[in-house]
Amino acid sequence: MHKLAAYEQIEVTLVKEGKATRFEDKVAVEHPVTVFLNDREIITLLCTPEKMDFLALGFLYSEGFLEGKKDWKGTRVDEENGVVYVDTDKEPFLSEELYGKRTLTTGCGKGTVFYSAWDSFKSRTVESDIRVSPSSLHRYMRLLQENSGLYGETGGVHSAALCSGEEVVFFCEDVGRHNALDKIVGECLEKEISLSDKVLACSGRMSSEMLLKAAKLQIPVLVSRAAPTSLSIEIARSMGVTMVGFARGGRRMTVYAGEERVLVDER
Amino acid sequence: MHKLAAYEQIEVTLVKEGKATRFEDKVAVEHPVTVFLNDREIITLLCTPEKMDFLALGFLYSEGFLEGKKDWKGTRVDEENGVVYVDTDKEPFLSEELYGKRTLTTGCGKGTVFYSAWDSFKSRTVESDIRVSPSSLHRYMRLLQENSGLYGETGGVHSAALCSGEEVVFFCEDVGRHNALDKIVGECLEKEISLSDKVLACSGRMSSEMLLKAAKLQIPVLVSRAAPTSLSIEIARSMGVTMVGFARGGRRMTVYAGEERVLVDER
Repeated sequence: MHKLAAYEQIEVTLVKEGKATRFEDKVAVEHPVTVFLNDREIITLLCTPEKMDFLALGFLYSEGFLEGKKDWKGTRVDEENGVVYVDTDKEPFLSEELYGKRTLTTGCGKGTVFYSAWDSFKSRTVESDIRVSPSSLHRYMRLLQENSGLYGETGGVHSAALCSGEEVVFFCEDVGRHNALDKIVGECLEKEISLSDKVLACSGRMSSEMLLKAAKLQIPVLVSRAAPTSLSIEIARSMGVTMVGFARGGRRMTVYAGEERVLVDER
Repeated sequence: MHKLAAYEQIEVTLVKEGKATRFEDKVAVEHPVTVFLNDREIITLLCTPEKMDFLALGFLYSEGFLEGKKDWKGTRVDEENGVVYVDTDKEPFLSEELYGKRTLTTGCGKGTVFYSAWDSFKSRTVESDIRVSPSSLHRYMRLLQENSGLYGETGGVHSAALCSGEEVVFFCEDVGRHNALDKIVGECLEKEISLSDKVLACSGRMSSEMLLKAAKLQIPVLVSRAAPTSLSIEIARSMGVTMVGFARGGRRMTVYAGEERVLVDER
């Protein structure tokens, strides 16, 4: 089977001080992948064509189409045509109408049923005894960067790493921020790895939808080099997620929520 | 009427060399805004609460709910409750089913009818005689940065500027990349400003959906400090959009598509 590459070499024009020269640039591949659950088309995701099986599984779980590994009967990837088939023997879920509404909650800044989605799991705050030192969090950010080969080549993707102890458990890159997280979720589900005692390190901004997803998945600690929003802080605080931003350069970071999980020398 | 702020001061914890100190940080506000077209709820956007009227109008136009200013009869903003009502006397559009599908095309990396959306306006390539010098493009990126006050305060938003001649015509910032463009589109529509002889400067990555939107709106030149994807290059080339990336530091830039509109001394 032909394996799709995560980047392409494309001839482009460099313009420098008024002069144009042609060169071969490396560009992140963005690939449409349509997800089927049994014989039903669910969504088309635009993604980096790696770990598409985990992406599909993670998306279906994050969005509530599957409730756990018990619902999952197998995945077939038709890479050539950009289709992933996930099999389940779960009863047809909810109503068409609710499904239609649900899918709108996960765009980039779009969520028709935003408040009802939040309400629906507001009572399930994230419980975890995990404690992390600032030096571990800086280490995770450094590992995230060191693993980001595709970003290094193209500058056009986000990365995410699930971390525990001294190491990265799963790592992935994707042209979409949400896809990167879904790939990790899918891999954890298939391999039966718990998220609730891990730290998620990511490269992108932490919006409300990222936090709703993390809270729903019971991820206790989120660390990023980027900024949060007012709403993501509100969600993190009410859901019990530790959220750390601006973790850059190995010296400082800002803790926006759940600081009791961050071990400091002095407070 | 109480005016919503674009950022909030929130007490957070700075951790630096093992020590924690409390301080007041400025955080970008992310605010849910529900858009109604006549009495019908269309979508909830998570946005920076500025120019919400233009956001709603631009979204409805970009997504095909309104075909032009002639369809627009007025906008009322209920800022307190996060609702924008847009009035039209246009006939109810298409079918529910098609509407349901359409909204999925505009998420961050999601597009059920991606290919059909592309096909539907493939023939309308962007026609424009505009020519721009590299120094103008660098100037636009500098102006974009100088105008980005909210980014400077919070680090948590994207910015977009519609530029022409020596200046910025419209500028906006938003927690969502797509929202920033929709705000500009809405303002252009309401004020009857043509997009087809302007340059759009933006801070974020250029994905396929950004390019589909730009092409549909007949924007001839797009410049960003960030990277494109393989699919955005493909769309830009087939639709006749000039796409410039990595325009940073005022000295160099990469032209990914439509280089005939970029005036260089030597080729």
